[in-house]
Amino acid sequence: MAFDTSLQRSLATEVEASGPAPALAAVAALMEMGDRLGVTDVITVGKDFTVAEIAAATDLPEEGVAGYLEALESAGIIDAVDASGEPARFRTAADYERIQHQAGYLSWTMNANRPFIENARAYLTDQSKPTGAYTRDGRQVAISSQWMGAQAFYPAALDAIFRLEPEHVVDLGAGTCRLLIEVLQAFPGSTAVGLDLDPASCRAAEKAAVQEGVGDRLTVVERPIQSVADDPGPLAGADVIHAGFVFHDMMPEEESVADKVLAQCREALRPGGVMAITDAVPYLRNPRERAFSAIVTYYHRQFMKRKLLTEQEWRDKLLAAGFSSVEVVELGFPTGRLFLASR
Amino acid sequence: MAFDTSLQRSLATEVEASGPAPALAAVAALMEMGDRLGVTDVITVGKDFTVAEIAAATDLPEEGVAGYLEALESAGIIDAVDASGEPARFRTAADYERIQHQAGYLSWTMNANRPFIENARAYLTDQSKPTGAYTRDGRQVAISSQWMGAQAFYPAALDAIFRLEPEHVVDLGAGTCRLLIEVLQAFPGSTAVGLDLDPASCRAAEKAAVQEGVGDRLTVVERPIQSVADDPGPLAGADVIHAGFVFHDMMPEEESVADKVLAQCREALRPGGVMAITDAVPYLRNPRERAFSAIVTYYHRQFMKRKLLTEQEWRDKLLAAGFSSVEVVELGFPTGRLFLASR
Repeated sequence: MAFDTSLQRSLATEVEASGPAPALAAVAALMEMGDRLGVTDVITVGKDFTVAEIAAATDLPEEGVAGYLEALESAGIIDAVDASGEPARFRTAADYERIQHQAGYLSWTMNANRPFIENARAYLTDQSKPTGAYTRDGRQVAISSQWMGAQAFYPAALDAIFRLEPEHVVDLGAGTCRLLIEVLQAFPGSTAVGLDLDPASCRAAEKAAVQEGVGDRLTVVERPIQSVADDPGPLAGADVIHAGFVFHDMMPEEESVADKVLAQCREALRPGGVMAITDAVPYLRNPRERAFSAIVTYYHRQFMKRKLLTEQEWRDKLLAAGFSSVEVVELGFPTGRLFLASR
Repeated sequence: MAFDTSLQRSLATEVEASGPAPALAAVAALMEMGDRLGVTDVITVGKDFTVAEIAAATDLPEEGVAGYLEALESAGIIDAVDASGEPARFRTAADYERIQHQAGYLSWTMNANRPFIENARAYLTDQSKPTGAYTRDGRQVAISSQWMGAQAFYPAALDAIFRLEPEHVVDLGAGTCRLLIEVLQAFPGSTAVGLDLDPASCRAAEKAAVQEGVGDRLTVVERPIQSVADDPGPLAGADVIHAGFVFHDMMPEEESVADKVLAQCREALRPGGVMAITDAVPYLRNPRERAFSAIVTYYHRQFMKRKLLTEQEWRDKLLAAGFSSVEVVELGFPTGRLFLASR
């Protein structure tokens, strides 16, 4: 018998059918496992490590770490640096950050939002079910967002901010102030205010700013963005105000508050100043974005009961707040848009 | 200001960075949700449906179904058949089956095996932890395997079996006998025996065989494969014996039993007969298969405590069982191989 020739002919069709799905799923699962094991926390991109070092840093037995690193290496996530060496040394693969970035999309969509998937029937049956009925794991949302965001949320916003050579920048919903710290490092004379609701993020931001040598130029303000509607103090003197994926959290219930916040931003900006808003827009139809846009929109509408504004709604809203013009920038992050509103 | 030109320049890099990950994750989440809602069960490929029909068939409110179908349509998973019609009619997209197939890889890897990811630290800390310590959801394993398998596990095996124009086929670990039913339909004079441990699968197989008009030519035998080592009765008269992803479940503890089963198969086959084994091989290194091969191998070794045999180990084992030659066929399913052992 000689099956091979004709059997292999069907292989191409089958490979085409599964495409990149098996590999993406595999690396996402291995990266998530690395997070749960604490291994991804102790790996530094481009720096060698051994089984013993990882085992010590994670308080895991060497045998277990050896098995896990074997899987990472075979998957192409890490490389064996010098196969002849003893003990074996490893290093992140050249595209480790891209792998982590892609894993972020699978992890956020398939896992951080899993309560929505598993409880879909309950949500659809009772449309009034409150947002928090099946709570997502905040840590899993944060980790997967961080992986996704590393290369896609903010590069365009950063690029726009850098171009303005700002003296004073304000970030609404600043989280751990990673964006502001980058700006402060790039512009040695500049100052910044990061505003966030979450105490833990504010403390982490203060710590990171000191570590990165910009602690004296960053002010962290622990309060909700909504407070700016009535007290615009934190906005004073800004030539850039940034807000990333925070405004939609006020929609629809607090849309009038959001409108006041935008008007206060317009009012507080220096001449020539710009408001830079990154947010998700609903149900895009172009081939690149439509599938991810659909799940982002549906999760927000059906499960988080949030309203995403269209590009046109954002333009109208920003012009109504007094801005003179609005530019819209497409982002690498599918269904995300950067709105640049000029004073 | 005119940010657009230069900002768009960085877009290409960012899009390249996320690649197909966002879209694959999105459709997998939407397909899983459809499974939990019971919607995927009532959708027939190529057949129109309305919101009201799906709502009635799934016992869900129309408003909820309308929102879900809007998401599916916007994602490109289903199409609106006639946008002007009232009520709106939908149909599965042309590549619906490919979408489901790809979703299967994400669902199996990221979700059905999630207990391994979330409890990785416990498994690695106590290497003796029994396989069932954190039990996977059998239904989620079955559904995701069915999605993955639809286009990739068995086409090569079926192709090989068809070519032999078999009169009598035996399937070890036949599940719901889908493969055997296809063979019986293709060869009107043929008969088959499907052996499986699981009572529910056996009953489903019998029902399906009757529905498909081959009930009188299929015998379902409810027992473990291991039983064949001492009682080869169910193998009698076969010119093809198939076994898909079942032998590795016997390794390593019952490897000698597996060897006896193989020897009985060799003994029972008619002259010219062939044993066709589909199974996963460990830690392949080629670019297409390495990542998925790594997670499949690691899940089996570390978490299920199973031993996967290499191609060479399979060849040796089959020759040792008395087969005269072994051919190995690469499958669309990454890390899967079809071994064709001639009597």
